[in-house]
Amino acid sequence: MTVKPIHLQICGLVSQRWSWKPRTVSSLSSFSPIPYPNPYSKLLPTNTVARRVRFAPFHASSSPLPSAGIVRNIKFCQWCGGSTKHDIPEGEERLRAICTVCGKIAYQNPKMVVGCLIEHDNKVLLCKRSIQPSHGLWTLPAGYLEIGESAVEGAIRETREEANADVEVISPFAQLDIPLIGQSYMIFLAKLKKHHFSPGPESSACQLFST
Amino acid sequence: MTVKPIHLQICGLVSQRWSWKPRTVSSLSSFSPIPYPNPYSKLLPTNTVARRVRFAPFHASSSPLPSAGIVRNIKFCQWCGGSTKHDIPEGEERLRAICTVCGKIAYQNPKMVVGCLIEHDNKVLLCKRSIQPSHGLWTLPAGYLEIGESAVEGAIRETREEANADVEVISPFAQLDIPLIGQSYMIFLAKLKKHHFSPGPESSACQLFST
Repeated sequence: MTVKPIHLQICGLVSQRWSWKPRTVSSLSSFSPIPYPNPYSKLLPTNTVARRVRFAPFHASSSPLPSAGIVRNIKFCQWCGGSTKHDIPEGEERLRAICTVCGKIAYQNPKMVVGCLIEHDNKVLLCKRSIQPSHGLWTLPAGYLEIGESAVEGAIRETREEANADVEVISPFAQLDIPLIGQSYMIFLAKLKKHHFSPGPESSACQLFST
Repeated sequence: MTVKPIHLQICGLVSQRWSWKPRTVSSLSSFSPIPYPNPYSKLLPTNTVARRVRFAPFHASSSPLPSAGIVRNIKFCQWCGGSTKHDIPEGEERLRAICTVCGKIAYQNPKMVVGCLIEHDNKVLLCKRSIQPSHGLWTLPAGYLEIGESAVEGAIRETREEANADVEVISPFAQLDIPLIGQSYMIFLAKLKKHHFSPGPESSACQLFST
């Protein structure tokens, strides 16, 4: 049985996508390069869950607002409190916030969002958002990776937080990017360890949808 | 022809690894889950390049020192300059630096490192580091993803910067994590667009090594 790839709807661009065939031993990934840029709307086939539910853009639960990291908003050094200047450091090409007192550079880099596509009885588990952004829309359980955890650990944690579901990660599923807001996504295919799920604090409902 | 997976040596843990078979149409990835945690030393077979050269840990070129994001080092708010307190915000579970003046939270998340495993005539392209960290060791071209670019774009840029090589990304190759220092890696398999490479500012040599 091959899981039909779910075309992921996001507020941005899909960079890399895998599909997946279980129990294929020892080798591996094919690769569906999607021309870049590629608005998600072109990716939606007629038979995906995206046509049946209002699908949320991916979100990142540990911060209420995504940030593209606007350098000029960094006005003070977080280490010494000195005021910053905004300049391109020697040997670099990008504008950075540089402390005028201690000289440290406040690097801003994309945040990594990790999540799970949970497949169960030919259905996938989605969560309905109970908070902003995207209140009332359906989404995969996903959120910001935290320091101290691996991407898989982060995806499992987010699933536990948002769907009270204990999952086992099976394979990578998709790597996505939303460059405009400085987010990079790693989505894993996963399965329920036991048939239990319920809405976490950020969800109003969790439901299996046919693929 | 199947590219033999190169076992990546890093100062940390390997979470997900793919191998790759070119020209396999329309489906997909298998998956080699590696028990976690798994010291890299156990992953090294006898015939990898890692046995022939001193292999650098992955590095991230846009910042001289990796940071695990020590919350208590954040003493001032970068937006208003107020002093911070270190506490667990309501509804969260992790210690954060919270501004005592404006209340903003300085979230620290892992940085994403992107790079290329460049395969050419059954060899792979490595760069010898000319700067710290890991001066004199060999590494894949890789570095921090920047805001405004996709993971693939970042990997291509790092390859251009460190090896003066113009590459085309073929497939994802590996997703790695070094939780201890807050880094998450996405490595892409790539090929040279033309047979040209030379050391960039951070490399003293670039060379093809047999796999």
